[in-house]
Amino acid sequence: MDKGTYLKARNRALEYFSKAGIILTDKEKENIEVADFGLNRLEEIGLQLVTYINTKRVCAKELILFPEQTCPEHQHPSLGDLPGKEETFRCRWGKVYLYVPGEAETNPSCIPPAGNERYYTVWHEIELNPGEQYTIYPETLHWFKAGKEGAVISEFSTRSVDEKDIFTNPDINRIPDLEE
Amino acid sequence: MDKGTYLKARNRALEYFSKAGIILTDKEKENIEVADFGLNRLEEIGLQLVTYINTKRVCAKELILFPEQTCPEHQHPSLGDLPGKEETFRCRWGKVYLYVPGEAETNPSCIPPAGNERYYTVWHEIELNPGEQYTIYPETLHWFKAGKEGAVISEFSTRSVDEKDIFTNPDINRIPDLEE
Ligand SMILES: [Zn+2]
Ligand SMILES: [Zn+2]
Repeated sequence: MDKGTYLKARNRALEYFSKAGIILTDKEKENIEVADFGLNRLEEIGLQLVTYINTKRVCAKELILFPEQTCPEHQHPSLGDLPGKEETFRCRWGKVYLYVPGEAETNPSCIPPAGNERYYTVWHEIELNPGEQYTIYPETLHWFKAGKEGAVISEFSTRSVDEKDIFTNPDINRIPDLEE
Repeated sequence: MDKGTYLKARNRALEYFSKAGIILTDKEKENIEVADFGLNRLEEIGLQLVTYINTKRVCAKELILFPEQTCPEHQHPSLGDLPGKEETFRCRWGKVYLYVPGEAETNPSCIPPAGNERYYTVWHEIELNPGEQYTIYPETLHWFKAGKEGAVISEFSTRSVDEKDIFTNPDINRIPDLEE
C-alpha cells in the first residue's frame, strides 16, 4: 500500500469513529491500522482498525469497514498449547454481515469480491445491527462484509497474533509492508 | 436493594448510555445490573453495568458510574491454577479517577465514602478522560470514582467471577439479593 492510500483510508476511518461517537487519543488516530491483506484492492477487501489493548490474555479492538468492504475468510488456529483466538464482534454503528459454518443462506445478502469466489466457503449468514453481537470460537472459518453504509464493530477477544491467522485465499499476506 | 431503587438506577444508567452514544439491545436494557455492594448507599457506593460477554477466556462490560459514585477497593485473586482477572478500563464519556498501588497522590481529586476511609488504602491516582485507558493486572488493589458528571467506561478483561473479588471492606457483599 502506498502512503497516500494509507492516509486517505486513515482519514476516512476517522469519520466513522466520529459518526459512531467513539473517542480516540491523538496517538491512536495517528496509528490507525489499514489492512489491504496484500491484495491491493482496499476499497473491496480491507479493514481499518485500532487495537486498544493486546496482552498475553486479552485483546480489544475497534474495527471499521467502509461500505461493502470485505474482511476475507480466515480462522484462528491453536498455537502449540495455546487455544486459538476467540473473538466477539459487537456492531456499534452501521451494519455487518458475518458468515460462519452452518446451514448456507440460500439468498445471501453479500457476494464475495469478484474473482475470489472460491476463497469464500462458509455461508451461514448472521446480520449484526448496532447493539448486536456474535462470538466466533477458535478454528472456525469466518468472513464479514459491511452493508451499504459501512460498519463500526468492537472486537473483544483473547490475544491477537494476526500473522498466524489462516486465510482461505493463499495470496493473502496479513501484514504487508507499508511502502514509504 | 428494593425494586424501586433498582428501577430508578437502571433508568438513570440508560441516560448515560444514551449520552455516550452506546446502543444496547432491549434485553440488555432490561437486565442492566445495579450493584450497591450490600451497603445500601447506592448514590455514593455503587456501579451500574452491562456484561456483553463472559466466557471462560474473555469478558467485556460497559460500566456506568453516576456523579461521584465510587466502586470500592478490591482485587481479583488467582483461583487455583487460573491467574486472577486482568482488566483494562477505557473511559468513553465523562471522567473517572482510578486508584492503584504506587506513589500516593499528595492532593488526591477524590475522597472515599464517609466513614469508610480505612477501606481505601491505595492512593496512586490515574485520571481517565474519554479515550484514555489503564490496565490492572491480577491481585492488584484498585478502586475508582467518577468525576462530577459521572462516567461511562468500557472494561475489557479475562473471565469475570465477581463473587470471588476480594474487597478491602469486609462488610461488602458483591452479589446481594434483589428484594422483590
Ligand atoms: Zn477473525
Ligand atoms: Zn476490578
